[in-house]
Amino acid sequence: MASDETSNEQPGVRRQTTPGRWDGVALMPYKQADAAPFRDVTRQVLFADPNLACEWRYFEVDDGGHSTLERHAHVHAVMIHRGRGQCLVGATISDVAAGDLVFIPPMTWHQFRANAGDCLGFLCVVNAERDRPQLPGEGDLAELRASPAVADFIRTCSPPE
Amino acid sequence: MASDETSNEQPGVRRQTTPGRWDGVALMPYKQADAAPFRDVTRQVLFADPNLACEWRYFEVDDGGHSTLERHAHVHAVMIHRGRGQCLVGATISDVAAGDLVFIPPMTWHQFRANAGDCLGFLCVVNAERDRPQLPGEGDLAELRASPAVADFIRTCSPPE
Repeated sequence: MASDETSNEQPGVRRQTTPGRWDGVALMPYKQADAAPFRDVTRQVLFADPNLACEWRYFEVDDGGHSTLERHAHVHAVMIHRGRGQCLVGATISDVAAGDLVFIPPMTWHQFRANAGDCLGFLCVVNAERDRPQLPGEGDLAELRASPAVADFIRTCSPPE
Repeated sequence: MASDETSNEQPGVRRQTTPGRWDGVALMPYKQADAAPFRDVTRQVLFADPNLACEWRYFEVDDGGHSTLERHAHVHAVMIHRGRGQCLVGATISDVAAGDLVFIPPMTWHQFRANAGDCLGFLCVVNAERDRPQLPGEGDLAELRASPAVADFIRTCSPPE
């Protein structure tokens, strides 16, 4: 524990002004290296104090959108905050709704889709020290598409510019 | 990042079965060292994977209850998950309701109370490596009680056995 680190966070309360929006939390585009494909996603950093050793973020996928299909050595601890949709974790597709927990183990392909007529907003806690996400290559995609359900689920294109 | 650590968590989705209760998450008593005073609080560990470097817990205070008045070198990142109440952070008392964020800086006295006719359930992320909470001594209590509002707010007794 780095208890002598300076604290970056505003002490005390920051209110949720509307669902998925908070006082003092900036709404950021969800952008990644290498033009990773995604659609209609915003990103907010709720807590990133150096004493915490992790970062607590909030991502919101608009109705019809999706996060990037990716994997990495670090893990994701997720709670759905609002709305509903589906997620892929490894080869498993699951319905998710507000309050559900999702754990993404190391090096596991995953993607979130707001494909249930609603937005999909989720809290995601990660180690502050983490590797960069990997995108699937042709071989990875062929393996993933060996399952017809997964082939139907995954989205690998960004929307047109 | 300890990316070679074995992952402890169940991959994929664990559903919220009713508000504040999840499949595969054990409901535990909220107990602390030294018979720390609290009232009507339960504790659940949502994520504690060694790769994460932090732990994500859920505490629920029944209507009329309170967490322990304490401080420690580690920080707390909190989001209210359900219900409403008030919290003390340092010398500031704030109303809190579902969705609000609360940051507890190092060595800052804090207490949560379900004092608004509802339960108060909150998510709390902490560094996996952290110091033990400290309870207020007589001198600390005298300092806290220099503010009439704080004197009125704080609860330092457990319920009768």
